[in-house]
Amino acid sequence: MAVQNSRIFTVSPWEKLDNFINDTQYSSVFLLCDANTSMHCLPYFKEKMPGLNFEVTTIPAGELIKNLETCQYIWTQWLEAGIDRNSLVICLGGGVVSDIGGFCASSIIRGVDCIYVPTSLMAMADASIGGKTGINFNLFKNQVGTFTMPKAIVIDVHFLKTLPERQLKNGYVEIIKHSLIQSPPYFQDLTNLSWPLQESELLEYMKKSIRTKTDIIEQDFTEIGIRKSLNFGHTIGHAIESFFLEKDLDILHGEAVAAGIICESYISSVLFKWRPHTFESIQTFMKPFKGTLRLSEADYPEVVAKMELDKKRKNRNVYFSLLDAPGKPKTDQKVPDDLILKSLEYYD
Amino acid sequence: MAVQNSRIFTVSPWEKLDNFINDTQYSSVFLLCDANTSMHCLPYFKEKMPGLNFEVTTIPAGELIKNLETCQYIWTQWLEAGIDRNSLVICLGGGVVSDIGGFCASSIIRGVDCIYVPTSLMAMADASIGGKTGINFNLFKNQVGTFTMPKAIVIDVHFLKTLPERQLKNGYVEIIKHSLIQSPPYFQDLTNLSWPLQESELLEYMKKSIRTKTDIIEQDFTEIGIRKSLNFGHTIGHAIESFFLEKDLDILHGEAVAAGIICESYISSVLFKWRPHTFESIQTFMKPFKGTLRLSEADYPEVVAKMELDKKRKNRNVYFSLLDAPGKPKTDQKVPDDLILKSLEYYD
Repeated sequence: MAVQNSRIFTVSPWEKLDNFINDTQYSSVFLLCDANTSMHCLPYFKEKMPGLNFEVTTIPAGELIKNLETCQYIWTQWLEAGIDRNSLVICLGGGVVSDIGGFCASSIIRGVDCIYVPTSLMAMADASIGGKTGINFNLFKNQVGTFTMPKAIVIDVHFLKTLPERQLKNGYVEIIKHSLIQSPPYFQDLTNLSWPLQESELLEYMKKSIRTKTDIIEQDFTEIGIRKSLNFGHTIGHAIESFFLEKDLDILHGEAVAAGIICESYISSVLFKWRPHTFESIQTFMKPFKGTLRLSEADYPEVVAKMELDKKRKNRNVYFSLLDAPGKPKTDQKVPDDLILKSLEYYD
Repeated sequence: MAVQNSRIFTVSPWEKLDNFINDTQYSSVFLLCDANTSMHCLPYFKEKMPGLNFEVTTIPAGELIKNLETCQYIWTQWLEAGIDRNSLVICLGGGVVSDIGGFCASSIIRGVDCIYVPTSLMAMADASIGGKTGINFNLFKNQVGTFTMPKAIVIDVHFLKTLPERQLKNGYVEIIKHSLIQSPPYFQDLTNLSWPLQESELLEYMKKSIRTKTDIIEQDFTEIGIRKSLNFGHTIGHAIESFFLEKDLDILHGEAVAAGIICESYISSVLFKWRPHTFESIQTFMKPFKGTLRLSEADYPEVVAKMELDKKRKNRNVYFSLLDAPGKPKTDQKVPDDLILKSLEYYD
């Protein structure tokens, strides 16, 4: 499958969005937002796009609503309002809004154009890039969805001003992950910055992050090869995330992935014989991003069981995307259970 | 959007299917059928593909099950059996099975390969061609779905031997429709054949039908222009179909479309000043295909109301795909209500 590239508007984004919409002459525009972005971001959007008429659909906020029931609500709203083949859908929000909105747009009347306006750092630097859409189905996370690139992505760091620092760090973890996959000097650059970042620094490294991900996706849109490298930190990260969420403990995706990066860097360092210093520098740098929750040794088997459960549920093996060295991803790696257990010690 | 062409296997179809599957090295194969094709077609399929291992999912038969609930059943079956990115889905059945199976395959884990084995003439000559997948959603017919071409379509007229003549005529109507859109000599050829057709004649004209539809779709995959011409006969046809189905009267899609072709040919003949003979020859030829149900004059307003309802529900205007002359489609035509009413007189 060929990638249809998205346009990414980072400089004068609203002017470009306005031009794009006018050039394409859409018959109607539908904006999807959630309860948070409706309050915090929609007024700014309206200010920036004063001439645009659109219907608003608002869904509740949070990962829990990324399901088929919400799709039915969205599809019904759009169909009853007369969506047609020349309509445009705009998703204003974080990753949840673009995941579910992108899926609904790709499957309503066999697909209408879609534009993402990401409002979180996580969505700007990662979730909105690459054309993965999807919802959670029963216990299967993101297992119903399509590969559909949005026509355009509008990046305005203004939205980040409304975000608490914890949310910024959450998204920054994916930027760090991209740097580790891409090259040691890129990672080095990030370690030399001091947190919190200036707006200009954030924009610069976000753009670099987007380029890194876009490059990988152009080589392998449907994730049969190199795209899997983007899962670095995510196998253990997801298990830790599920472990805490099931206990109703408050962990963000990026915090779990930060922990996953530490653990999977450790595994990589053992399997591929890194010099000790390399792992230590990653561990030290990632620590402030992994949140405040702690794992005790007694929890380790349960975290490993989460991966096993995932494997059993999907009837598929668990493969890791590791690093042969920073900048050299190595996908489809099996890892022995005792090494996974050992790596969890580095969580704390 | 570019069309990804499907391979269409008409000569030695099973050998080609076998080669295709072996060449692609799928990790697992999932076959979807309905209660009818499970009994009448699956044994033959197994006989023809003796070396193939696959999981079977069987859904009830009929248009009524083409809904989201059935999708959930199919997705669950596939996910629990360990479907992955390198799996293959085979849809064995008529248009309902390929519509819903194609949609489920295009949206499970962001899309897996799909092959259609159509078992009805309607599916061979029309429904399986062109990459429209979809389900009915609430009162919206085929309004949730994707444009996704199957990797291959396997045509074996052996399956038609199990079909009653009424079902054969049902599919033949779409072949006639293609001839009317494509060229007068092609239509003339069909009128010179005597019913029931020989197997070789059926195969020849089915292949011609597939080529006609494929040519149109290559020009306009997402139906923003010339592809709309394939809706000829369908605006009034759908209204008649809904009218009778709602009264629990037994009408087939092709029978309703045969009636629709008569009415919309009449409308075309008035609007575009055909010679009387042209309309009469179409009317005479189509009559045996439109089934035995009759409309009385008192029913006409209700049939027109069906189109209005559709218009109101979708908040869109009703446009007809007509013929400037046979072989010269003319899409996006508005037709005055009194002319629609008048055309219904030619139904009987």
